[in-house]
Amino acid sequence: MCTHTRTLRAQVLSGCGVYDGTEIHEASAILFHLSRKGAEVQMYAPDILQMHVIDHTKGQPVEAESRNVLTESARIARGKITNLAKLTTQDHDAVIFPGGFGAAKNLSTFAVDGKDCKVHKEVERVLQEFHKAGKPIGLCCISPVLVAKVLPGAEVTVGHEVEEGGKWPYAGTAGAIKALGAKHCVKEVTEAHVDLKNKVVTTPAFMCETELHHIFEGIGAMVKNVLKLTGKYSGVS
Amino acid sequence: MCTHTRTLRAQVLSGCGVYDGTEIHEASAILFHLSRKGAEVQMYAPDILQMHVIDHTKGQPVEAESRNVLTESARIARGKITNLAKLTTQDHDAVIFPGGFGAAKNLSTFAVDGKDCKVHKEVERVLQEFHKAGKPIGLCCISPVLVAKVLPGAEVTVGHEVEEGGKWPYAGTAGAIKALGAKHCVKEVTEAHVDLKNKVVTTPAFMCETELHHIFEGIGAMVKNVLKLTGKYSGVS
Repeated sequence: MCTHTRTLRAQVLSGCGVYDGTEIHEASAILFHLSRKGAEVQMYAPDILQMHVIDHTKGQPVEAESRNVLTESARIARGKITNLAKLTTQDHDAVIFPGGFGAAKNLSTFAVDGKDCKVHKEVERVLQEFHKAGKPIGLCCISPVLVAKVLPGAEVTVGHEVEEGGKWPYAGTAGAIKALGAKHCVKEVTEAHVDLKNKVVTTPAFMCETELHHIFEGIGAMVKNVLKLTGKYSGVS
Repeated sequence: MCTHTRTLRAQVLSGCGVYDGTEIHEASAILFHLSRKGAEVQMYAPDILQMHVIDHTKGQPVEAESRNVLTESARIARGKITNLAKLTTQDHDAVIFPGGFGAAKNLSTFAVDGKDCKVHKEVERVLQEFHKAGKPIGLCCISPVLVAKVLPGAEVTVGHEVEEGGKWPYAGTAGAIKALGAKHCVKEVTEAHVDLKNKVVTTPAFMCETELHHIFEGIGAMVKNVLKLTGKYSGVS
């Protein structure tokens, strides 16, 4: 039975562009799969400066420039975005974090500090509140490090644990996940890992060097399982 | 029979963000559908300044800021992007233009000049060369105005011709398409129009106020027909 409750899902962005913000195609894939399932979504981002601005043609920081995470995230959200400080469990029955280096540079200090990272206080609050409320949390790509830091003992995947000739260029992240106190579960890019106890669902996405439709497939599996765990949406397939 | 020729398709970007560049989800949908069909793609953008920078949280220009179209487009392309001046029909058997106001502000002056618009010289060259070579051109959202200006008499769609209570907020564009000398064909957001004579394929995308998966469906129809028209890929379904 599907109750069709019109509660919203939340997506938390971290900028706009893989090297200093949200990975654009992951955010788009999440929105596409939520849309297919009839799930409405509201977007949030913290109102803070980015760690830095990367010229994506060169992969190098632009020293003279600064950009705001909320303002840049609005490019993905087509203007419809809210300050992360206003995100509550009362308004949403699930929260999803796409990846991109923004999760490791703006939502946390993982890109700089690794296992000694700090998580932005509003991100920490959101993860703790959704966890406490028993509401599911979906994450992909590098974002599982946020849960690994904030919810000790959670099970997450960032894909494989060895590089395999460049197919998994960020395979070392699995070790950092473990050092943060989480359990790492090896998964393929088309799969999602479901931590039923903590209601945490993760998929590798762009941690894998592969074709885009495989990444969309894995994100589809993540979104489907997040919606199932809300307990308000059993019509998903 | 599918020959599986490994020629590349080209996607031409105009920045990163619906109000001053490429509509992000349209670009992502094009890449997703090309990937599903096994079609490789290379991305291009002109190396020019944007007309302006829009703060997407406010919909207002940021007077003090300027951004480069190629540099911002690289955010969608994950760094793998080439100057539009280097795009040739020798290297590609099809070219696709996503929408977003960048097509009307950076690739042309349509947003300012309407039917009296100019098209960026490299965009004009690319459209004329692909047309002359009998290679298909795909466009969505507002981008069909580029073809309407450069290829007189072409048939395109930007969706419906009346607003219908806000479902088609940019319906007036159909009139401008006709004033530019093209033929406008009414289509639903999930459909593509195929101009067989000119090998031009168009779909309304975000010209329609609707759920994202309908926009993905229409872009899928556009991509499928573009690939069919290359004559090198009959395996599409």
